[in-house]
Formats: sequence, C-alpha cells, structure tokens
Amino acid sequence: MQLLDGKKIAQEIKEEIAAEVLKIKGRGRKAPHLAAILVGDDGASQTYVNSKVKSCEEVGFKSTLIKLKKDITQNELITQINLLNNDDSVDGFIVQLPLPKHINEERILLSIAPEKDVDGFHPVNVGRMTLNMPGYIPATPKGILEIIKRYKIETEGKHCVIIGRSNIVGLPMSILMARKGYPGNSTVTLCHSKTRNLSEETLKADIIIAALGQKEFLKANMVKKGAVVIDVGITRIEDKTRKSGYRLLGDVDFEEVSKKCSYITPVPGGIGIMTVVSLLQNTLSAAKEEYYEKTLRFSVDEDFLP
Amino acid sequence: MQLLDGKKIAQEIKEEIAAEVLKIKGRGRKAPHLAAILVGDDGASQTYVNSKVKSCEEVGFKSTLIKLKKDITQNELITQINLLNNDDSVDGFIVQLPLPKHINEERILLSIAPEKDVDGFHPVNVGRMTLNMPGYIPATPKGILEIIKRYKIETEGKHCVIIGRSNIVGLPMSILMARKGYPGNSTVTLCHSKTRNLSEETLKADIIIAALGQKEFLKANMVKKGAVVIDVGITRIEDKTRKSGYRLLGDVDFEEVSKKCSYITPVPGGIGIMTVVSLLQNTLSAAKEEYYEKTLRFSVDEDFLP
Repeated sequence: MQLLDGKKIAQEIKEEIAAEVLKIKGRGRKAPHLAAILVGDDGASQTYVNSKVKSCEEVGFKSTLIKLKKDITQNELITQINLLNNDDSVDGFIVQLPLPKHINEERILLSIAPEKDVDGFHPVNVGRMTLNMPGYIPATPKGILEIIKRYKIETEGKHCVIIGRSNIVGLPMSILMARKGYPGNSTVTLCHSKTRNLSEETLKADIIIAALGQKEFLKANMVKKGAVVIDVGITRIEDKTRKSGYRLLGDVDFEEVSKKCSYITPVPGGIGIMTVVSLLQNTLSAAKEEYYEKTLRFSVDEDFLP
Repeated sequence: MQLLDGKKIAQEIKEEIAAEVLKIKGRGRKAPHLAAILVGDDGASQTYVNSKVKSCEEVGFKSTLIKLKKDITQNELITQINLLNNDDSVDGFIVQLPLPKHINEERILLSIAPEKDVDGFHPVNVGRMTLNMPGYIPATPKGILEIIKRYKIETEGKHCVIIGRSNIVGLPMSILMARKGYPGNSTVTLCHSKTRNLSEETLKADIIIAALGQKEFLKANMVKKGAVVIDVGITRIEDKTRKSGYRLLGDVDFEEVSKKCSYITPVPGGIGIMTVVSLLQNTLSAAKEEYYEKTLRFSVDEDFLP
C-alpha cells in the first residue's frame, strides 16, 4: 500500500505557483489577487477562509477578506458581489458557503461573474466542465485529479466507483473520470443513497472515490484487493486527548482498508489539503486569463499569451 | 415484451402542445415562434430541419427557416445569430449541426443567447442541467425521460448502463438518470469506447441506453432477462426494396433483444421521433419564459405566471 500524500503534493504545487508569481512580478505585473466574502461568524467557515487567505500569502498572492454581518440582506450581498465583479484589481473571488438561511445560495452563485468564479460553481463553469471545455473545475474534484496525475495512477479502462452525488464532489468527479483524456477514460459508476447493494458495486471497482460524508463508512470487505481508494470525507469527532479537542475521520475505515488497497489518501493530509491548492491554481488561471478574456481589457499582455 | 411507442407518445404530446397553443392564442397572445438556421445543403440536415418546421405547423407554432450558403463566414453567421438573439418575436432558435468545417461549432453555440437556446447546447444550459436547476434539456435526453415517464418505468435504485458518452446523448443521460427525482435516482454506469468487458456491465443492467452509433451492436447475450432497453442509434442502410432506398437500424439488434427484455424502443418510431417533440416542448417553455425572463420585457404577463 502506498499513501497518496496530499500534504507533499500540495507543498510541491504551492512552490510551483510561488515561482510563477515571482516571474509575473518580475515582469512588473501585479500579483494574482483572490478575494473572499465571509458572511456571519460560523466557526468552521472562518477556519476555511483563514486557511485560504494564509495560503495566498504563502504563494505571494494578494488576498482580500471581506467580512459581512450575518443579517446582511440578499440584495446587499449581491451589491458587494457586483463591486468585486467590476473591480479590475480582483482576479477571482469566492463566497464562502454555507450562507445564512435567509439568503438563496443559487441566486448568489448566479450573480458571480463566471470569469471570476474560481470556485467553479456557476452554471457556465459547470457546463464548460461537463462539455470538456477549458474552465474552472471545482476545488475538490480538481485536487483529486491532480493527485491522480502526480502519482501517475492509471485511469483508462479502469472501473471507477464514486459514492455520493453532490454537486461539488461526487457528480463532477463522475463526469471528469469518464471524459476523454487523462485523468479520465474510466468506466464510471455513480452510487448514492438510492443505490441498492452498494458493496456489489464497490467490490468491482479499480478506483473508489468515497464522498458521502459518513465517517469510516467504507470497510475492507467492500474493497477489491489492490484498489485505489480516494477518501473525500472529513468528519470532526471530539477527542479530548488532542490539543484541538477533536480529530478528523474520513469516509474510509483507513485502518482496515489501507491493508487491502494499492493506494489510499489519508485523512487528514489527503484530499482536504489539496482543495485550497486547487483554489490557488484557479486564481492563477484567472489572473492569466486562461479561460476568459477580461472584457474591459483591450490590449493583450504578451506575457500571458500561451 | 412491451414496445415503448415513441410515435404514439409523440402524437399525444403534440396534441397537448397544440391545445396549449390554442389557449395562448385565445388570450390574444402570439403563437410560440421557433427559428432554425440551416447552413449549406447537406441532405440529412435538410430533412431534419424540414421535419422540425413541419412539426411546428402541426402544433400551431410559428416557424422561420433561415437558409444560409455553405461558404458563409463564421462572423456572418454570428451576425445572423445576434439578429435572432435580439428579435423579440423569436422565442427560441436552433442552428442545425453539423456546420461546414471552416466554422467553429463551439464558438457558434456560445453565441446563442442561453434563454433562446432551445437545443440546450450552451454551457449555461448544460450547467443548469448538471446542477439539477430548471432549464432546457437537450432534445434526445429529454425525449428519453419523457418516454420513461409516460410508460411509468421505475428508475429508483435501478442499475442503468449507458453506452456512449457524447455531449448530446450519453453524458447528459448519465447525469439525468443519476440525479434526484423521477426519472432518476438510478445507479448509473457510463460506458464508452475505453470500457473493458462491456458485456459484464450491460448484463447487470436493469435499464440499458444504447447511444454509441453502431448498428445492431447490442445483442441478446449482452442483456439481462427483463431489462428495459432504450435504443438511441439511427443508422441508414441501403435497401432497394424500399421506396426511399434505405431503411433505419438502431444500436440494438431488435430481433434478438426484443425477445429477452421487458420494454424496448423500436427504430424507427422510438426515440428518434421523440426528439422533435422535445424541441417543441423547449420552445413552448421559452415562449412561457419558464426558465429565463426576457430581459427586455418589463411587464410580466399574468397568463404566464405559474
């Protein structure tokens, strides 16, 4: 069994991005700039956003954190989003989810300009991904693809079973693993809460991606010997022996499954840590206008031509 | 074995649409209006477009056929598309594919206003479909869902195997059959040219959707007894005994497979005939502004409120 070391890969990628930022700045251009909107004071959301801001600093990006009160109206939030949409100094931005219940998340995501939607949640970007056109891929799926690539895991003709059909992980992964190219060209089965005999499906899998959000759900008797196991789950459980007061468990029973599979991602230090790096990659792509030209920019900077 | 009679269902739906058009006209409103752009003189494309125009007449829609020379430039075509985008009298329009090789199809599809994209090929509409948001669903997948619905075929928890991953049939069907709701909630396996041991996959399927474009590909020994078989393929083969000079074959060996399955769509008279009807349904939705409000319309017509 080999560990798919998200921590190591994330560090490698951050160094690559930092080197590219240095080159960009060396040419007299501004650093890529990510903005994040945080509504309310949810503890987990604050932790996530802070880690994104910190990662920006590590690679030399500019970052802006906009904190808004939890009772902000939907229209006020949209006004704030429009400011960022029209701010040429901002390359990409995210609105940290979840939002307070009085705000319609779908409406908010639709109001983000697609060319700055570095979370890749806007229907235009989801559509581009589905159609295999260049565009922002949501952070977690992008992180999974990256780790598969860096470990040169074969995917063509493999049977890939995905557990969970969320819009941010399971469903996009099913599209990405089936499409032409590498990683991809897998025969993909998408399983979910309505799937009968889930073990029958997972036992045939060469690659399993567990993204259902139930701690230690995938047991050794559900996994074929030698399978590649990608664990997307992150559940916090109380642990008074730790300084933080909690520890993290994945959707895979690591203890059992790691003895039977060929590759496995740990939790923590696996996919979770890759998602922040994916966001940095998308922001770099935004700054380089890889997918969209800035509508207000009339001259093309030669440095950014492919 | 029961036949899934596309011809009968298509007729039913046309009558429902015609009744709704009469009601709309009765309220003093204009009939829904579909425009079609045909570039060049490809025989098959002409046949398809003519059948779309004829179906519009049958249900009381207004239709406009715009024929353009095959050497039209890409920019001229986009100019034509922009005229339709900005023409308030047109509810929806399509650009018949394939286009001549000197024109970039992706660029053309991107230039169609999403609210008039009744083919559902624009990334925004593909993204809306992927995210299970209301929107135009491409004609063939929409027709398949409709026939499943009208025959009340159970899909929840069923294993659905799709052969072929095209952007217009296989891939969207894999998304639609897996998503929450009915039809949907199936465990979906998407197979394609890189799939190994295809028979192993199809033999486990409760529902098979064959959309690979190879005549009589699916044989009885690849199908579980009692499966539901949806045949999307249409291949013309020469047949001098027919007046037309040809006959149509599907991707399924109907002779063999029909003896083993519970339901099957014939070719012709199955899915093919449903696709034109789906286009009419999408055009009706466009006229009723079900998914997008017309940006230039400031007063909402009460008749069209839900």
